Amino acid sequence: MRAVAIRRGETSPTVVEKPRPEPATGEALVRTLRVGVDGTDREVIDGTHGGYPEGDDHLVLGHEAVGVVEDPNGTSFEVGDVVVPTVRRRPEGRTNDYFERGQADMAPPDQCLERGISGAHGFMSDYFTSPEETLVPIPEHLAPLGFLVEPISITEKALHHAYVSRSAFDWRPESALVLGNGPLGLLTLAMLDDYERTYCLGRRDRPDPSIDIIERLGATYVDSRRTPVAEVPESHETVDLVFEATGYARHAFDGIHALAPGGVAALLGVPESWSFEVDGGSFHKDVVMNNKAIVGSVNSGAAHFESAVDTLTDLPDWFVDEFVSGVYHLDDAPDAFVADDAVLKTAVQFDTY
Amino acid sequence: MRAVAIRRGETSPTVVEKPRPEPATGEALVRTLRVGVDGTDREVIDGTHGGYPEGDDHLVLGHEAVGVVEDPNGTSFEVGDVVVPTVRRRPEGRTNDYFERGQADMAPPDQCLERGISGAHGFMSDYFTSPEETLVPIPEHLAPLGFLVEPISITEKALHHAYVSRSAFDWRPESALVLGNGPLGLLTLAMLDDYERTYCLGRRDRPDPSIDIIERLGATYVDSRRTPVAEVPESHETVDLVFEATGYARHAFDGIHALAPGGVAALLGVPESWSFEVDGGSFHKDVVMNNKAIVGSVNSGAAHFESAVDTLTDLPDWFVDEFVSGVYHLDDAPDAFVADDAVLKTAVQFDTY
Repeated sequence: MRAVAIRRGETSPTVVEKPRPEPATGEALVRTLRVGVDGTDREVIDGTHGGYPEGDDHLVLGHEAVGVVEDPNGTSFEVGDVVVPTVRRRPEGRTNDYFERGQADMAPPDQCLERGISGAHGFMSDYFTSPEETLVPIPEHLAPLGFLVEPISITEKALHHAYVSRSAFDWRPESALVLGNGPLGLLTLAMLDDYERTYCLGRRDRPDPSIDIIERLGATYVDSRRTPVAEVPESHETVDLVFEATGYARHAFDGIHALAPGGVAALLGVPESWSFEVDGGSFHKDVVMNNKAIVGSVNSGAAHFESAVDTLTDLPDWFVDEFVSGVYHLDDAPDAFVADDAVLKTAVQFDTY
Repeated sequence: MRAVAIRRGETSPTVVEKPRPEPATGEALVRTLRVGVDGTDREVIDGTHGGYPEGDDHLVLGHEAVGVVEDPNGTSFEVGDVVVPTVRRRPEGRTNDYFERGQADMAPPDQCLERGISGAHGFMSDYFTSPEETLVPIPEHLAPLGFLVEPISITEKALHHAYVSRSAFDWRPESALVLGNGPLGLLTLAMLDDYERTYCLGRRDRPDPSIDIIERLGATYVDSRRTPVAEVPESHETVDLVFEATGYARHAFDGIHALAPGGVAALLGVPESWSFEVDGGSFHKDVVMNNKAIVGSVNSGAAHFESAVDTLTDLPDWFVDEFVSGVYHLDDAPDAFVADDAVLKTAVQFDTY
């Protein structure tokens, strides 16, 4: 079968031939329909995130997949069921409390593998196998868009953690600031439709398709070159929720000062080591005196995938149409990974339902 | 009546004469029994925290009070009821959502007054008046220790906010690190008796009464001069909970790295502006990749006072005996504010029950 992989020492993905996998006991064989691409894939390709499976000279890419059960292999699925796989897997021969308790998404990096990212092959191949408990069934009619379930689930988890952190009091958020107008930022903005006022920060010039979407969603575009995060309170307002999806480390600090009292910042970006000066005293004091919270969030669990299905169903058609800017034939798969301001969300097509 | 106050321009408190207050409608008149002293009082005296009531040349100190209802004045209290007052009050003639929703503890500093701290006279006087809804009844037998209800309530709130922030998953904390061996740190350590392993950070030499208490509580004393917070994971372990009660801003950063995956840091200290260099990239990445949370917490609400009463009841007698190192006669009130390593928790006595 064909697979899209990054080979050790290379800087762009290629289509390779691999044997079709055989499902082990408890695993189903899935025929892949589409696999989405995101910033993490680019970091994996660049070598700044994740890593190859032990002993392998390549990593099959892709962690945002949707497929059809081809061989249930004794699992409770039926042939033809549309499924989305979760990403994290137990390291072979090892177990730990996170997997034992069914919350692999809470495991630290050294206690899990991530398919398509870190130490385990991804889903960008004609077929993949996966344990029954890692496959989330979705309605048939969502098959073409099922590759959006995983990225939506990332935001579902982050918002869940952010919201519970404010559940000790009567929190009534009205305003939100999304940091980043990449795919995750735009998806999140679309999910925050119950906020009265939303802002989305980017650094692009008009005309730009992400700015068009931001404004059509009723949000205010904040150009960080003119209005840095630290100035959002003065230029606009303090906000109840900050959702950071940039990986720009200064945002973890400036975003806190942009919060209203009792607000929460969800951090999702993964920056590299970078030392800089901060007014740590004012940061600390602001967090305390204004009862602010910061939650970091990575990955997501099966429950977040399930709520993501509902969220996906509710997204406006126009949004999905504009958001998914390109679905690439397998022969053109490498093009799906090219970063370009005109490109929002891309996916590679393997088969149709 | 007599009151302990700090006068503008002075650097130590004095006993002053003031007229006995008349309860307004909805307020009870309370005869003061004891009022505790803490680090915030010292900051108020030093002028680094809080401020005088508008137009007054002095501030009556004290926010950790216990008293007896002298005149119910139409409230539901009866003469002789033992009560503890909450600290925050609505600024006169103004209201806001925080007070409307009964969560004054979530108000930002500019939308509330704090008795004995910021803009409103405290409870360190023979009598004080307070609105019915700000007086929490406590059992008679707790009258001598009732001044501990307010400081315990501070930790009740911080732990409440920390715990709910981890309620999105099955969190089973086993280890905790309390930063600071001052009164709040020691009280908190005593409250963390369901943790398997606890650590308390300080910077004192033995023999020292706080270290004695730390060890009798079964905790490990961490001398920050030998083991900085950043080295706690290597020297001891990463911990599920960090409770910061020092006001030392670097702890807000180093404490995060001392957290185990999925851990939470509660920040309570109030440092001044202080710029320093941090590896903001690693901080941000650690928070995200390990699903960590940070919650700031200040003040407390009536519900936290109520749970503090239960907590106070459960504290071991030996702890309270050693912890309360001095109860001062009103004539010696200024001595209760002197910071000294031999002194743990002090209070000023006005009357007996």
